[in-house]
Amino acid sequence: MVQRNKNIAKLQAGYLFPEINRRKTEFLAKNPDAKIISLGIGNTTEPLQATAVKALKDASEAMGTAEGYSGYGDEQGMTALREKIAEKFYNNRIPADEIFVSDGAKCDTGRLQMMFGNDASIAVQDPSYPVYVDSAVIMGQTDAFNKDNDQFNGIQYMPCTAENNFFPELKAADVIYFCSPNNPTGAVATKEQLTELVKFAKDNKSIIVFDAAYAEFIADPELPKSIYEIDGADEVAIEVCSFSKPFGYTGVRLGWTVVPKALKFDDGSSVRDDWNRIMTTVFNGASNIIQTATINMLNDEGMKEMRELVAFYIENARLIKTALDSYGFTTYGGDNAPYIWVKTDKMDSWEAFSYILENAHIVTTPGAGFGPAGDGYVRFSAFGGRANILEAIERMKELSL
Amino acid sequence: MVQRNKNIAKLQAGYLFPEINRRKTEFLAKNPDAKIISLGIGNTTEPLQATAVKALKDASEAMGTAEGYSGYGDEQGMTALREKIAEKFYNNRIPADEIFVSDGAKCDTGRLQMMFGNDASIAVQDPSYPVYVDSAVIMGQTDAFNKDNDQFNGIQYMPCTAENNFFPELKAADVIYFCSPNNPTGAVATKEQLTELVKFAKDNKSIIVFDAAYAEFIADPELPKSIYEIDGADEVAIEVCSFSKPFGYTGVRLGWTVVPKALKFDDGSSVRDDWNRIMTTVFNGASNIIQTATINMLNDEGMKEMRELVAFYIENARLIKTALDSYGFTTYGGDNAPYIWVKTDKMDSWEAFSYILENAHIVTTPGAGFGPAGDGYVRFSAFGGRANILEAIERMKELSL
Repeated sequence: MVQRNKNIAKLQAGYLFPEINRRKTEFLAKNPDAKIISLGIGNTTEPLQATAVKALKDASEAMGTAEGYSGYGDEQGMTALREKIAEKFYNNRIPADEIFVSDGAKCDTGRLQMMFGNDASIAVQDPSYPVYVDSAVIMGQTDAFNKDNDQFNGIQYMPCTAENNFFPELKAADVIYFCSPNNPTGAVATKEQLTELVKFAKDNKSIIVFDAAYAEFIADPELPKSIYEIDGADEVAIEVCSFSKPFGYTGVRLGWTVVPKALKFDDGSSVRDDWNRIMTTVFNGASNIIQTATINMLNDEGMKEMRELVAFYIENARLIKTALDSYGFTTYGGDNAPYIWVKTDKMDSWEAFSYILENAHIVTTPGAGFGPAGDGYVRFSAFGGRANILEAIERMKELSL
Repeated sequence: MVQRNKNIAKLQAGYLFPEINRRKTEFLAKNPDAKIISLGIGNTTEPLQATAVKALKDASEAMGTAEGYSGYGDEQGMTALREKIAEKFYNNRIPADEIFVSDGAKCDTGRLQMMFGNDASIAVQDPSYPVYVDSAVIMGQTDAFNKDNDQFNGIQYMPCTAENNFFPELKAADVIYFCSPNNPTGAVATKEQLTELVKFAKDNKSIIVFDAAYAEFIADPELPKSIYEIDGADEVAIEVCSFSKPFGYTGVRLGWTVVPKALKFDDGSSVRDDWNRIMTTVFNGASNIIQTATINMLNDEGMKEMRELVAFYIENARLIKTALDSYGFTTYGGDNAPYIWVKTDKMDSWEAFSYILENAHIVTTPGAGFGPAGDGYVRFSAFGGRANILEAIERMKELSL
């Protein structure tokens, strides 16, 4: 019989969000009349903008014509889309051939681990998006899970807490995952902090994987939206980005990853070339309908609609944060990020999750699901319809964590 | 500095099809007036059917409304789509919860290797779709490339040649990749042959990954379209399948993989559960627009249109094969498959590729690109517009391999 992959056996329980969904379903089975509001997974709720819908319909229509039909395209993405991304999100500071279009940041994270391989070591912010750690475990980059500290041996955890203002003491590893605006804490790294990160990576010969999936939620012009705003970052950093949150594309699926030509492995070989090999070998391009539509949506009107959509969710975040603050909760984030990170003083984070679910019928995300330093917090997502957000705020009034 | 993944360093040159494209571009640079016909990569050319276009437009429209909008869905695919696939392609013999929807067979192949991990050993038909071998190399399942036999050490190659009627002597490994209708040889395994394959896998405690991406091209009712038509296959086989070729979805991106609950690892644990973990961790679902549209396309009218599209390409295959036969070429496949496998007696397969490109301005695929036993053959794809197919046939008249 075929042996089970020993690395998958190391994983704990399920992936966080299916696990939360399981608990929610269990609660609903016992309380069928509960009107649950989901502020757990960061899932967009507002319809696509008019420009996007029109572009998608046009792209679909074209696929039914001899002139407009296309089959397989370049696995790296359509050239016109790569150019549009360079223009609209990087002001053409990044060349189009360093931008690889994909079906999303989560999928690219898995493929990045495949590229780095099982000998790579990683460092993560703690708490962090669970996919960094889980995919590292699957690829065999770690040892066993250590129940004493709730960490995988072999991974460098960099605690981000209220005490260090959610910017960690940096630790050396081959690959440092860093997310800003941060999921889950909502913290946004300053230019000085990212300069320190880039310097640290250079000094320690690390590669940064910078997760900028929430960059468009940054309103403060002083805060960097891309790691490439830092001088020399192209020599040490990959950037993963996504259309999901700003454009409401969570279900539509489109993202991109930047791998600069200046980034090298120790033998002088090009990281970009290996990424290109990975993408052409185990990926087959994002849907051409989605790509074509997005090219035609990335104009002034589409970008304006995107900013309106982002402003809507940021107003949600402000409403939640303001209300929770007025009730006496201790909150972080939520200013330039769609997540509010709420301290739980009287219970641990899974207890807080259950307490909020049972007493307010709101699904949140327990901080411990993002790593051991996330315990003592729950995450409120600002992705929701306005009526639900206002109702959720109302229900939180009498609670206390 | 970060070390380059030693497994990626083992790979030879580029992935086959980008390499062919490179050579085509090079030829065009020297011969800018050449009117090249591409029968290389199996890339669909005919527009989407009316039912599909309407369904895609409707699904796009819905995403712009509060009622119709959806964000992240289940990574495993929409339940209604899994049920439709079970009904339309398996006559409900496979339960929907063993069907995992994805963005395509190539991507699933990469994720399957990630699931099996770096300790797994594999066997492949030789020649075979290059992604099986390349992804195994990337995952560290092989040793170095051996220039003496053009094989990776550690992989079991099972030669499929005219002498064995393209059904190989089976070799034991943890995972046996088997493709029928075969890419590239166009051979279709009989029920007896697949019964032998299933028995061999049971006897040798192997898992079969059965690639059925071309199943809908089987017209002969005696030939099995799915490995699950063989008794007991659910205990030994995973099946990878795709909407790409029958529905013209190569650029649209949608496929599925079946992992039966009866399939176990040696410790008794469920392969399906590990696949579920992989899919939920490093994948985020196929596009909801494509999924919704496909649910609404998988009706009697949509299936009828699919069969018309398949019949069109199969007629292309018949035209190519009949013409090449009449010119004195030795051909295989092309009856229940969209590929014609043509013997080259006077030159090796890359020479034949160049000879055909230079003298007929037709891009084919050199057999050696699919493995060492593919040398001595070139593959003609039947995916093309009718005028191009007829023109290509005309241009082949005076050639001789």
